[in-house]
Amino acid sequence: MKKKSFPLANVYGLLEPGPVVLLTTARKGVPNIMTMSWLTMMELEPPLVGCGDNYSFDALKATRECVINIPTAELAKQVVAVGNSSGRKVDKFARTGLTPLEASLVQAPLIAECYANLECKVADTRLVNSYNFFILEVLKAWTDPAVKDPKTLHHRGNGKFMFAGASVKLPSRMK
Amino acid sequence: MKKKSFPLANVYGLLEPGPVVLLTTARKGVPNIMTMSWLTMMELEPPLVGCGDNYSFDALKATRECVINIPTAELAKQVVAVGNSSGRKVDKFARTGLTPLEASLVQAPLIAECYANLECKVADTRLVNSYNFFILEVLKAWTDPAVKDPKTLHHRGNGKFMFAGASVKLPSRMK
Repeated sequence: MKKKSFPLANVYGLLEPGPVVLLTTARKGVPNIMTMSWLTMMELEPPLVGCGDNYSFDALKATRECVINIPTAELAKQVVAVGNSSGRKVDKFARTGLTPLEASLVQAPLIAECYANLECKVADTRLVNSYNFFILEVLKAWTDPAVKDPKTLHHRGNGKFMFAGASVKLPSRMK
Repeated sequence: MKKKSFPLANVYGLLEPGPVVLLTTARKGVPNIMTMSWLTMMELEPPLVGCGDNYSFDALKATRECVINIPTAELAKQVVAVGNSSGRKVDKFARTGLTPLEASLVQAPLIAECYANLECKVADTRLVNSYNFFILEVLKAWTDPAVKDPKTLHHRGNGKFMFAGASVKLPSRMK
């Protein structure tokens, strides 16, 4: 898979459909992966992403850097494995066979097998204490240009997931 | 379509997959509809939803109430029509043929044709000035119990949408 730099102004199109993502961090050289499906765009450009969960985001808090990696259906098994293993003592890259790659602007690794990777820094922590909610700025985006209509995973809860279905063009003037 | 009360603790399963939604408000008796795809869960129970956009959310600001209505593929044409018409001078219910129904706890109307409706009040406005981002508490939820795997719409940008595809059960222990 050859990834190419992807325009920051188009990042919203990767996240608005609502895929489950894999958030990677690295703290003192120790990488970690978490699944996440609580995230939303908050600004188009520079792209701001709001995200949170009930996890403790200790590494994100400490390092203020992460990568949002977007998996597709082929990685469903690995996504579930990451979600099921509680993080700190387990090397999730080793356990899942996912491949860490060096990012360009942050210490956290890209996941090679994900079709898109967004290198992020924490931009606003005002809601971290109340809701464990971080506002991230996407600094650099990478995608596999061969993937046009990614078959992303979407979480319905209680073990149920939905895979992205057909894409259609509609006469919408929304950005 | 007969809607039934839906448990607040399960609302996350309706929104986590990332559907485009129709946000309804009512100000001085005048209803309005907006499309929205920037939203995320922020807390499970009581369910908190963070949402925003580049629109001006004047009615939401003034009344602090709204309904999040979740459309499915049959309503794609109406969703696009709502997104394409700028709000204040157009009666979007009349223009689209969508049917307003009285809500139980808020002044904003439910959209009858949507398979799910979430009555909300504004719970936190700390990020409104910076990002036009509202935190809503879902007070009451309604769904059509006949709809098990809703074929929701998901926005890819620039006129492109994705329809929800197949659902699968995976051995996930995520909530």
